[in-house]
Amino acid sequence: MSTIPMRNFFIIWLFFSIPVSATSQDDTDALFIRSIHDVILKEGACYDWLNHLSENIGGRLAGSDQAKQAIYYTRDELQMIADTVYLQPCTAPYWTRGKKEVVQIINSKGETIDIGGLALGNSVGTGTQGIRGEIIEVFTLDEVRNLGRNTIQGRIVFFNRPMDPTHINTFHAYGGAADQRVNGPSVAAEFGAIAAIVRSLTTAKDDVPHTGVTRYRDGFPQIPAVAISTNDSDLLHDMLTTDHVQAYIETDCRTVMPEKQTYNVVAEIKGSTFPEKIILVGGHLDSWDVGGGAHDDGAGCVHSMEVFHALKKLEYRPRHTLRCVLFMNEENGLGGGLAYAAASNQNNEFHMAAIESDAGGFTPRGFTCDANDDIFANLFRQLTLWEPVLEPYHLSIWKGGSGADINPLKSQNGLLMGFRPDSQRYFDFHHTETDRIDVVNERELKLGAAAITSLVYLLDKYGLSFD
Amino acid sequence: MSTIPMRNFFIIWLFFSIPVSATSQDDTDALFIRSIHDVILKEGACYDWLNHLSENIGGRLAGSDQAKQAIYYTRDELQMIADTVYLQPCTAPYWTRGKKEVVQIINSKGETIDIGGLALGNSVGTGTQGIRGEIIEVFTLDEVRNLGRNTIQGRIVFFNRPMDPTHINTFHAYGGAADQRVNGPSVAAEFGAIAAIVRSLTTAKDDVPHTGVTRYRDGFPQIPAVAISTNDSDLLHDMLTTDHVQAYIETDCRTVMPEKQTYNVVAEIKGSTFPEKIILVGGHLDSWDVGGGAHDDGAGCVHSMEVFHALKKLEYRPRHTLRCVLFMNEENGLGGGLAYAAASNQNNEFHMAAIESDAGGFTPRGFTCDANDDIFANLFRQLTLWEPVLEPYHLSIWKGGSGADINPLKSQNGLLMGFRPDSQRYFDFHHTETDRIDVVNERELKLGAAAITSLVYLLDKYGLSFD
Repeated sequence: MSTIPMRNFFIIWLFFSIPVSATSQDDTDALFIRSIHDVILKEGACYDWLNHLSENIGGRLAGSDQAKQAIYYTRDELQMIADTVYLQPCTAPYWTRGKKEVVQIINSKGETIDIGGLALGNSVGTGTQGIRGEIIEVFTLDEVRNLGRNTIQGRIVFFNRPMDPTHINTFHAYGGAADQRVNGPSVAAEFGAIAAIVRSLTTAKDDVPHTGVTRYRDGFPQIPAVAISTNDSDLLHDMLTTDHVQAYIETDCRTVMPEKQTYNVVAEIKGSTFPEKIILVGGHLDSWDVGGGAHDDGAGCVHSMEVFHALKKLEYRPRHTLRCVLFMNEENGLGGGLAYAAASNQNNEFHMAAIESDAGGFTPRGFTCDANDDIFANLFRQLTLWEPVLEPYHLSIWKGGSGADINPLKSQNGLLMGFRPDSQRYFDFHHTETDRIDVVNERELKLGAAAITSLVYLLDKYGLSFD
Repeated sequence: MSTIPMRNFFIIWLFFSIPVSATSQDDTDALFIRSIHDVILKEGACYDWLNHLSENIGGRLAGSDQAKQAIYYTRDELQMIADTVYLQPCTAPYWTRGKKEVVQIINSKGETIDIGGLALGNSVGTGTQGIRGEIIEVFTLDEVRNLGRNTIQGRIVFFNRPMDPTHINTFHAYGGAADQRVNGPSVAAEFGAIAAIVRSLTTAKDDVPHTGVTRYRDGFPQIPAVAISTNDSDLLHDMLTTDHVQAYIETDCRTVMPEKQTYNVVAEIKGSTFPEKIILVGGHLDSWDVGGGAHDDGAGCVHSMEVFHALKKLEYRPRHTLRCVLFMNEENGLGGGLAYAAASNQNNEFHMAAIESDAGGFTPRGFTCDANDDIFANLFRQLTLWEPVLEPYHLSIWKGGSGADINPLKSQNGLLMGFRPDSQRYFDFHHTETDRIDVVNERELKLGAAAITSLVYLLDKYGLSFD
């Protein structure tokens, strides 16, 4: 036997007994932002979408079959909640990992330890013959330059600077160590190294290697590069303090030419009053091939889709044009973001505001905002007026970068914002096999979507003055 | 080969090149709070302690062997970081779960489904013959009273009101549903029910049952009570909409008389200037028997121990007396908290401030504060002065309850505070088999300890004026 709880009667009574005319502007906003949170926490679709992207489709490297599946899946889902949806062509290099990597470390007695390793994205492979050489450990790129060709030549350079755990925001710790992965292999190659091993970019101590892009500079040799786990990095460090240690690396990865044709997914709801002013929400649909790309950046995609879903549920018709853009190939070249901005500029569009979610599906902290120097102060002042209605949800707004995919829109002289959830766990999973739905908390994900939807509502309702 | 990173040289240089005399008071506090965070994030012991409590010892129900092991373990660890450590006697009822519960639901065709169930803490058992009866679903305790003895008599009452997912703070959702578990079975018994089944108190939809205390009122029958998972609750609800459904329950739990002698663990560092004014940090050492009691409340215990550990590492000598108290039996009677307050009052002690951590080991949000009405505003004003130095760590202070164990100290007319981490995931694990170390993030736990240590530092340095 089932009975309607008394509590619900009370809520229904409460709802109908507040005369709209008696509410202040702030009350209207507070009520609508409350209703955004209610509808997403109770009926949000973002977690189910993310489950499909992460578990049924999986890792979505640009150019891969999985990326293609993700494009069609999100297009079909968006068609139910947007006025128009289209695929916007862009290109992406297609890099494949190939067979599972072999990474071994060998001490001076010839004893061999098999450790886990992941080829860095964009890396060349070793070929089936593999590469073997003596390891030299360094902590900075300058150290490679200082040691010079005499020391580096013919060796395997091991970049082992840990992420600094004392940063409260883990993205700052990442920023302080990522040069080793992005530029380290190319700098090592400049001085004659035959391969590079990079400590995984995480504050966690575990056995999970983290991939991510490495970049080869024109005019220098391209050498194979792999990431190893932090535990294995510490082990290797200890061995190197008392011994000469070699590594054997075998990777099958390669970039398949020519570049692939792929797509951004763009959904739109036309604005009723200011159709020419665009408010964009987006994330990137591609991910690395390992894991499910759940936090990076399936979360940002489903956050953005949920904005449309929730506003439709609430029968909110926007005054400005809303765009939900799922960018392709953020991870390995930014092809989607650059193509989107180029097309937008060609069409003389104006993005009044663009918001990117690319920091995971964790409990929201707020938003960073960015704009060209001459307009920043004016825009920031307008945003801070909204803090009182965002405060019950513990959301703040502060100055900072927005997102890689929307950054090319900065020349349109609008507002750029980045969604900022709690950062503590992000680099536990970033670019790994473990970035799957089971490390995403449904409430945290939904609260992120509600935070972004609330901001979109305020941007749409009040607009922004650029005078 | 290993090389010291250049970065470290820079930090060392920076450290020695700031003349202390040139820093303002705020700078001194900012630097010390920064050093608290650094030492805990780099060398904190709290995660290792929690790993031992949760995984090597396990669930620590008051009166159990595990609780005893936890008392000796934490006493020994505290002896290395405190001036004095002692065990403070208290008593606790000793409830045991006995053999694994059997919970079955049976439709009108006699088809039987085995579902997972956990006896509620303090519940009487069914005996080996079990209890079978028709289920009646209700959503409130008032519904039981309204239905009355005619309907309830001889039946098994199923309390199925979900936690409201729209609360941003999940503790509020818990507060809105917990009456079903705490008081529901006794109210059902008052009207003749033969057993009670309670929907697990969590916003998660999964197969994990959550235990927790139920209370029998004097003068009413005591009936067996079990919790079932939210998925099973929804299944049972669906079956009940079209069918008469029975349950069979078999539980082996019982309270073993007489009460057990047990202990609070109390550690102290004597204050150099105001030894008679006490600043207490604490959590509760007992947990439910299932799982490892990692978030509830191993986290609060190791947070509190870390305060002593970090201040010792930093060679900070407190002006006020610091107490770290690991309370026994918060879960099933509050024996430790009541005994501590009684002894303290008898010794005419004054707790200038007491801080409890009993909301999990998640990313810190800040602190609630509580005091008697006539002194609250004055104390709150003093606390808000510290917000600028806490703000870089995203810590706020607001009005609210403190903690069950320290609440009996309120009559001493000091300040009571509760540590408040992010609440989104807490009730996923609360009182379950899954509350283990693997659901605790090391950085989040350490940041909590650093937040509490920072607050203790400020309380100790500036004291509180009660005038």
